[in-house]
Amino acid sequence: MDPRVREHAEIIVDHSTEVQAGDEVIISGHPIAEDLVVEVARLCGERGANISVRTSTDRPQRAYRNAIDPDDITESGVSRAAVEAADVAIMIRAGDNTFEMSDVNPETNSALAQANKETQDAMMETRWVGTQYPAPANAQDAEMSTPAYEEFVWNAVSKDWDAVREHQQQLVDILEPADEVRIKSGDETDVTMSIAGNPVKNDYAKRNLPGGEVFTAPIPDSVEGTVRFDKPLMAQGREVQDVFLQFEDGEVVSHSAGKNEEVLTAVLNTDPGAKRLGELGIGMNRDIDRFTYNMLFDEKMGDTVHLAVGRAYDDTVGDENEGNDSAMHMDMIVDMSDDSRIEVDGEVVQENGTFVFEE
Amino acid sequence: MDPRVREHAEIIVDHSTEVQAGDEVIISGHPIAEDLVVEVARLCGERGANISVRTSTDRPQRAYRNAIDPDDITESGVSRAAVEAADVAIMIRAGDNTFEMSDVNPETNSALAQANKETQDAMMETRWVGTQYPAPANAQDAEMSTPAYEEFVWNAVSKDWDAVREHQQQLVDILEPADEVRIKSGDETDVTMSIAGNPVKNDYAKRNLPGGEVFTAPIPDSVEGTVRFDKPLMAQGREVQDVFLQFEDGEVVSHSAGKNEEVLTAVLNTDPGAKRLGELGIGMNRDIDRFTYNMLFDEKMGDTVHLAVGRAYDDTVGDENEGNDSAMHMDMIVDMSDDSRIEVDGEVVQENGTFVFEE
Repeated sequence: MDPRVREHAEIIVDHSTEVQAGDEVIISGHPIAEDLVVEVARLCGERGANISVRTSTDRPQRAYRNAIDPDDITESGVSRAAVEAADVAIMIRAGDNTFEMSDVNPETNSALAQANKETQDAMMETRWVGTQYPAPANAQDAEMSTPAYEEFVWNAVSKDWDAVREHQQQLVDILEPADEVRIKSGDETDVTMSIAGNPVKNDYAKRNLPGGEVFTAPIPDSVEGTVRFDKPLMAQGREVQDVFLQFEDGEVVSHSAGKNEEVLTAVLNTDPGAKRLGELGIGMNRDIDRFTYNMLFDEKMGDTVHLAVGRAYDDTVGDENEGNDSAMHMDMIVDMSDDSRIEVDGEVVQENGTFVFEE
Repeated sequence: MDPRVREHAEIIVDHSTEVQAGDEVIISGHPIAEDLVVEVARLCGERGANISVRTSTDRPQRAYRNAIDPDDITESGVSRAAVEAADVAIMIRAGDNTFEMSDVNPETNSALAQANKETQDAMMETRWVGTQYPAPANAQDAEMSTPAYEEFVWNAVSKDWDAVREHQQQLVDILEPADEVRIKSGDETDVTMSIAGNPVKNDYAKRNLPGGEVFTAPIPDSVEGTVRFDKPLMAQGREVQDVFLQFEDGEVVSHSAGKNEEVLTAVLNTDPGAKRLGELGIGMNRDIDRFTYNMLFDEKMGDTVHLAVGRAYDDTVGDENEGNDSAMHMDMIVDMSDDSRIEVDGEVVQENGTFVFEE
């Protein structure tokens, strides 16, 4: 057992989810992440919690999704009941082939997400965390050797998260009282949105491990302008490149992609909320120093901004404000390291990746 | 994909559990049985059912059980909620090491079984089935090569179960109205018991796959005579051989074993019911032509009878009759292929493995 696996498990159980005696804990993952699943299970035992372990490859889900008629899809009552009974949900991502779901009908994926939206809501009410195990196929996505990728993942995970919280709080303090945020990058990205009254969250690895971003929700109808996303994204098992979105009154009125545009179209057509933004996130984790085709890491990368179409996290929507209740949540990334700036109420807060409080 | 896997999956989904549109199906198993899990998932999709897949090795459970203080064990609310929401539970047995749980504290196992008894009861109210995938470690238990064991398992599973039901019903029709059953084999086995008023069950692979037995419960006090069990049995992780029991007024008054007799003694001393019979079963699956140290198969072997000391299944005890409420249920097998006969109310019903209705 690699000692870094035990350290990873301790951060999951004690920092991110604070598992305690009597907690009902769902542990889900892939068999290839078994070492980490075993260590998390052991620590949950030591804490006196109950566990429910559900590891699986993607193959049963792939076969199921390719067999079912999308019109026959209904909510999974078993999943809903299980999640509603849970206090903690630990989701360990890993794979033996990250393209395993690449030939599933996007319509089926959307229908399943739609049918199980309330289960997803219930999951978000647990003390959940999503993390990554550095399996060889994940290293392959990152175009790295497995040992180098292990080093990358475990360096990003095993941090002083209290120091991270303090550093990021400086940006939270700027955004919290603000109204308008403008993201400008190169010739094609110039988008404005209001965040007035929406709570700004400091991600120091409570729900995402690694953490390292500051995020909130835009007011849905306030988004205006255009965005060219510089980094590719994986959606429904496929790589979507060069996404371009144009917003009017908060809605995507025009979209294109350089590769797999039909996947983007399916994402945007999931439901009305999928055509509106649900998240503005600012990546601040400079230990994530390379793009690895994995949103859990990519969106935290220093000198980036990400925007998500679809669902807004409830805790980023002010009591007086409208949220976004979509079944979708798709993050897309803009590189802010060059010819870029973030303006907040007309003041430059970041220029070419450097924050005002870092100068 | 081995075509026999698809056939196995079809019997599970269409014969044993009759999965239909809208059913909530829990599929549990071991990652090594993935091919079968995938095929079951695919068929559930074709039928329009919802699935919840939970494959895991034994390692997370082993780590958890060895970490938790037995006094901290409580019911798993997640498992209970999930099972109560299920219509169908498909349990696929397989392993990569069938001794993986051998160093778990028995007290912890008992505490977990006790805490989750109502979940177990709820599971028994679903359309459940237990079956076996022929993994290499399971072949090892059977002392067979993996290809030979695959052949053995899939021959026993892939049958015309409606024809089996009809064939076995001939024996049910003989036993249902009967009073006394006499089992005679060789010089040492000659035992009689009453089954008057107890329902006789026809196992044609609804709950066990493979199926292939007819079974009921003896009236506890009615058992008289001696039995030499020809096949070894596994109890408390040890192999007990050449068990001999003598019954008077239904109670074991004398016992011996050729190997590990002290294990047999411990079994019989569990509680008062463990010294009395709880099941008479007649194995009728002639595709199970060898002993494989796996009771799912062994008790269905053609030309055998099995008697269990301990608990009687509720549905085999007539409303007017006494049951057996023991915490133990230990099946033991008599070979009936040679110098043997089963008599029912004085009539010979089987001689040297051949039933009267087969002549």
